[in-house]
Parts: sequence; structure tokens; C-alpha cells
Amino acid sequence: MKKAAILGVGSELLEGLISNRNAQYLASELKLLGYSVIKIVTVGDVLEDIVKEVRELLSKVDLLVTTGGLGPTMDDLTREGVAEALGRKLYVDEELVRKIRERLSKRFTRIPDSVDRQAMVIEGAQIVENPVGTAPGQMLKVDGRIVLLLPGPPQELIPMFESVKDSLKTNNTFYQITLKYYSLPESLLEDVLRDILYAQRDVTVATMADHVEGVRLRLTTTMDKRHILDEMVEKILERTGDHLYGVNDERLEEVVVKLLKERGKTVAFAESCTGGLLSSTIVNVPGASEVFVGSVVAYDNEVKKKILGVREETLERFGAVSEVCVREMCEGLKKLMGADICLAISGIAGPTGGSPEKPVGTVFIDLFEKEHRTVKYHFSGDRNMIRTRSAMTSLELLRRHLKGV
Amino acid sequence: MKKAAILGVGSELLEGLISNRNAQYLASELKLLGYSVIKIVTVGDVLEDIVKEVRELLSKVDLLVTTGGLGPTMDDLTREGVAEALGRKLYVDEELVRKIRERLSKRFTRIPDSVDRQAMVIEGAQIVENPVGTAPGQMLKVDGRIVLLLPGPPQELIPMFESVKDSLKTNNTFYQITLKYYSLPESLLEDVLRDILYAQRDVTVATMADHVEGVRLRLTTTMDKRHILDEMVEKILERTGDHLYGVNDERLEEVVVKLLKERGKTVAFAESCTGGLLSSTIVNVPGASEVFVGSVVAYDNEVKKKILGVREETLERFGAVSEVCVREMCEGLKKLMGADICLAISGIAGPTGGSPEKPVGTVFIDLFEKEHRTVKYHFSGDRNMIRTRSAMTSLELLRRHLKGV
Repeated sequence: MKKAAILGVGSELLEGLISNRNAQYLASELKLLGYSVIKIVTVGDVLEDIVKEVRELLSKVDLLVTTGGLGPTMDDLTREGVAEALGRKLYVDEELVRKIRERLSKRFTRIPDSVDRQAMVIEGAQIVENPVGTAPGQMLKVDGRIVLLLPGPPQELIPMFESVKDSLKTNNTFYQITLKYYSLPESLLEDVLRDILYAQRDVTVATMADHVEGVRLRLTTTMDKRHILDEMVEKILERTGDHLYGVNDERLEEVVVKLLKERGKTVAFAESCTGGLLSSTIVNVPGASEVFVGSVVAYDNEVKKKILGVREETLERFGAVSEVCVREMCEGLKKLMGADICLAISGIAGPTGGSPEKPVGTVFIDLFEKEHRTVKYHFSGDRNMIRTRSAMTSLELLRRHLKGV
Repeated sequence: MKKAAILGVGSELLEGLISNRNAQYLASELKLLGYSVIKIVTVGDVLEDIVKEVRELLSKVDLLVTTGGLGPTMDDLTREGVAEALGRKLYVDEELVRKIRERLSKRFTRIPDSVDRQAMVIEGAQIVENPVGTAPGQMLKVDGRIVLLLPGPPQELIPMFESVKDSLKTNNTFYQITLKYYSLPESLLEDVLRDILYAQRDVTVATMADHVEGVRLRLTTTMDKRHILDEMVEKILERTGDHLYGVNDERLEEVVVKLLKERGKTVAFAESCTGGLLSSTIVNVPGASEVFVGSVVAYDNEVKKKILGVREETLERFGAVSEVCVREMCEGLKKLMGADICLAISGIAGPTGGSPEKPVGTVFIDLFEKEHRTVKYHFSGDRNMIRTRSAMTSLELLRRHLKGV
């Protein structure tokens, strides 16, 4: 298996001013291309350190990707460092100077001479165009090894890496599918699938879980064993298909908006403890306006009564966090908004407000189309986690309702 | 200045399964303690690689912090790696075995023998207790240098680092204050403060900006020059005090909730393009229920009319994104919720819906207590950024209103 290393350059990383957001992206991409990443290093804007590290890493790997240090200032030393480490010259590419100045002249009236530093190219390197910023990347081959220089900002780095990644492929590329679940806990998923997942050695399995995306089951194999993975996915879906909400990058809120559009249905929410988080999550999907009517954030009990018509008696007898209350919230919301599907949430997000009968994390959700479907949950975590779980669980309830499961 | 390095251990980092969230935290903490972090390295769960890297880094620094590789499985090799690099023995600490087993017995019925690996201590090391998980840390002195072994999960690492950081202090610790602004752009702030910020060499200045926290001005100096920094802050506040919303970790929504409590005022929102984001942001502050009544997410124009009483004529003549519309939204909201202060937002978050007169990013915000205060903005960025800027700008308007500026 071919080896790779990632070298981040930038004193701002060593001072903790920013986090290295590129390393994880590159590591995961390089793995799919068939590389074993053996080391990730960060050094400062010090020429000597860069030169030494490039030499050291290049003696061990087939591919070295550097990030950062390609800007116009005197602190940006990655070009010089790599050139010196390889014993190659730097020259100014006049065509590049022209392009960079042209690009900048659209935004600035005065262009400092320092930008010409960005047009310095290492002998034998191929330019990697930067569609977002001014710092071009460079790629060069050295005795069968590849060195790729990319800028630091992820929004520039990612499209540039995408544009060259085909040329970095090994004979050993990987095939990967991620299956996503919200209503199935990680341990249960592993139990249910144990015989499928671990009866073979061709596909590696990783599970990850968090309260925003739920449980992700990541299956990876080499490209030539793609069919084995596909067959595995088929078997997995036979058992867990109802619970699967998406594949790879699909987000739960996107899936729900898509399903609502397909079914021609509209939706409205009445939110208490989530305080607008569910609405905000769905509104972040472009085109949500076709299916989302609006919400009432009924945080205060007076609002529950006055706007949603929750009865005084309900609040007194059962409290705001109760099955009866969320049902009345939904009915009031239906009258107010006229949406096809109404959903109401009321719960205790903490840190205060819990009781022995209703501890922090108790949440009621009601989904009302033709009839009520009310569920009680006990979520763990801090205030923010309980609110996020409540909102995401509501989306999962909507998805299952729309799918008819 | 003393030097430090950070060594992350874990194949999951090299495969891009998780991101290294500890590096930035440690780097920034180590800087305050007076260290210059010269290198951050990540290697896999390979004994040979760990040994080699520990030796290499220890030959260059006064303090080496390792993260990860302290779990109970055979993959967790940091203890062995450090011991071998230093030529020291590992022994099983029976007291630690007992403690770990006791802790686990509360949660599990069967405890695998592998947990005893976590009780292996490097000769001469001092145990660093783990208040959250089972993996203890270790700290040892080697010829005047310090090696600190910490576990990988940030929720365990952070309290453990906090518990030992006093003992890591150099004679050269730093003093740091971060000033936070939302209504002053980064370039303007630098212009206004240039003479104060750059007339001296004792305090280093860093500015960072994003659409959630706004502009942060970070001032750092050595502890003995603390008074110079404090004097600088005083001068800065003379010029920009009205714009300052918080210091260090204070968040804008926390400041607003605190001010509302102090003034004894309640607030309600009518949100269109933000779709509940403003409400959700304020609700995430514990105790928000004392000051936040509720909101109407009036995404559909029918909701603006029916619930908030926006006039048909207003929508036809001026459109939903207009000064007249947000004012009517606020008035309707006031009648509905009876809050002391009402705030309404309507805008175009994109990617579609823009026009030459009202391009994507056009947002109107109205704040209504006794009279209307309406502002029109042009925010740049994608849908998510425009929505976030709208919500945070609303909070800043509230803050300034409550402060009487």
C-alpha cells in the first residue's frame, strides 16, 4: 500500500489561533484513494523547519500534501521550503502574475507588490488553479513521489484537491458507503447486524454516533471488492431499511423536505423546549418554503394558552410537559396554520426544572395529521444536546410518518 | 522561551475518522503558560512510530504532551511507547487496578481483564486522575523535561489538563484578554485603534472574525507587563466601549439575556428568513424562560397576514421584505404576545428569491418597544451565513437598545 503524509504549515496553528480543519478531510480522502497516511505534522512559518520536515517526510512516503503558507506575505514560506528541500529553483511565472493581478483588480484599487510572491513556481511543478482565492497550488513529481502544495483555507483547499485527486489514485483505491440512522441506537444496530458485519474480512466497518447526525455505519473495501460491499448493503437494508434515513452526505432535514415535496404536504411546528431549533433546521434547507408554513415558539405557558388554545385545566392537571398538552398544542396549531401535518414538542431541557416524575430530558412529541401520534422520550445530555435530540427526533418521526412506517 | 510539542496517537486520526480537537485547545493553553509550541505531530497506533517520535520530540522540547492511546485495548500503546523511548519500566499499580475496577463495576456486570492495562504506570510517573473516564493520565520528569500523557476524548482531556496546568507554568506566563464586537467590522476596528494597537511592542494583537462571534480582538502579553495591557484595554474601551458586547468567553446571547433580566424586560420575536434561529439561540441560554415569551415563525406570507396581521396591501405594494412589513409584524406580535420588546426579521436568505432591487442578503429588522427602530442590511455569504448574521445582528440591536446606545 502506498504511503502518504500531511504537512500543515502555519504559526497560527501552533499558537492555537485556528484549528487544523484540513487534516481530517485530507486523511479521509487519501484513504479512499488507496494511501495509508502514516503521519500528520504541523510546523510554524520557519523556513528551516519546513525544509527539514519536507525532507524527512519525503524519505518515507509516496505522496506528501502540504497545506498553508502559500499567501503573499513574507511569512508564507512553503514554496521556498519545498524548493530548498528538493534542491530546485523558484521562478516567477509571468502568466500567473498577470492572472493574479487581474483577479485582484476586480476587487481592489491598489494591489501590493507582495502578491507577486504567489506567482513563484517551483521548477518542474504544475500549477493547480485556485477557483476561490488568489493562492495557486502546485504539484510536482520527484523520483516517482508526488508533492502537492495546497493553500490553508478549507474553502480553497477542498475544490483544489477535488480537481487533482483523480491523478493521485493508486491501484488500490477504496470504495465506501455510509448508512445513516436516527431511530436505531449504535449498540442495537451492531447487535442486529453482527453476523453480516463481522462474518467477513473484506469490508471494514466503522460506526460513529452523535446527536446531530445519529448513527453512521461506514463500510469500506477495495474497489475490486465493490460487489461484496454492495451485497452487504443489500442484506443490511433488508433488516434495517425502515430505519435508514440517508446515505453518505444526505442530511435528515433534507430528506424530510424532499419527502414532503414528493407527497405534496405542508408542515407547521409548535415548539416549547426546542425554542425554534426544529424550524430553523428545516428552514436551512434551500426550498423549504415550498413545504414549511411556519411555527409558534410557545415558550411561555401564556403563549400556549392564548395562541395555541391549550386549556388552563390541562396545564394545571398534567403540566406543560405532558401528552395532553402537546396534543392540544398540535390541535391549536392546526387551526392557526392550516398545515397538512402539525408537530408539537414540549420538554425539560434543563439544567433546572426537572422533578422525580419528570426528570431533565423528559420530552413529549406529538405528530398530528389525521390522528395523533404521541411519543414520550428521556434524552440524556446537556441543555443543548437535549434540544438537538428533540429536534432531530421530530424530523425522524416526520420521515417515518411520510414513509408510512 | 521554553518549547513544547504535542503528539497525538491514534490510527483513527490518520484515517480521518475523527478530527484532532485537542491540538488547538492545548496549543492555546500552552502558549498562555509560556511555551512556544514548535511542532504538532500525529502518528498511528504503531509502537515503533510512537517510540521514535517521542525520542525525536523530547530532544527538542521542554514539555511533551501526548494525547490518546491510553485505553484498555491492545491498540492503546502510548504508555509502552513513552516507557520504551525513555528506557523506563512499566509496572501495574494495584491501587489503580482496584479503583478502575470499582468505577466500572457500577456500570457493567462483567469487566474484561484488558482494563488492567490502564493501570500500567511508567516508573517515576505521577498519576493524573481522570474525573470523567477510566483512563488515568501520567506525568513524569526526565532530566528537567516534562512528559504528560493524556487520553484522547476532549471531555476527559480538558479537565485533566486543567488539574495539572499550574505545575507546568514557566517563569514567562502570558496574560490575555479578548474583546468582542458584533457591530464593528474588523477593518474599521483596526483603523480606529491603529495608534493604540501598533505603537508598542509589548502586547501582541490578533484579530479574528466570523459570523457567529463577530470580531474578536485578542491582546496577549507576559504576566509582568499585565499593567500595560490593562491600560491599553482602558484606552480601547474609551473609543469602542459602546460596541463591545463581551470579554473572553462571554456570548452575545448570554449578555442579552442578562441585560433583559437586569432591566426586568421580556422579549418576543417574529421571524421570517431566520426561521426560528434567533429564538433558538436565545433559548439555549439557561434561564432564558424568565425573559423570553415566545415567537412566531412567519415563513409563509399567509402566516404573516393571518397571525401577525400584516396587511395584504403591504405585501402587494412593498413585499414581505420591506420596512413596512417588519413594522407590521412587530405590531401584530406585540398584540399577540404582550412582550415589552418585540423584534421582527424579514429577508432573503437565498440561494433563490433575489432581485436587482432586493438582492440575496437583503434583510430588514425592526425593534419595537415604545417606538420603531428599523434597519436594512445587506449581508453576504451563503444561506446559513445570512441567517446567522441576521439572528446575531438582531441580538446586537437588542443589546444596544437595552444599553441605551
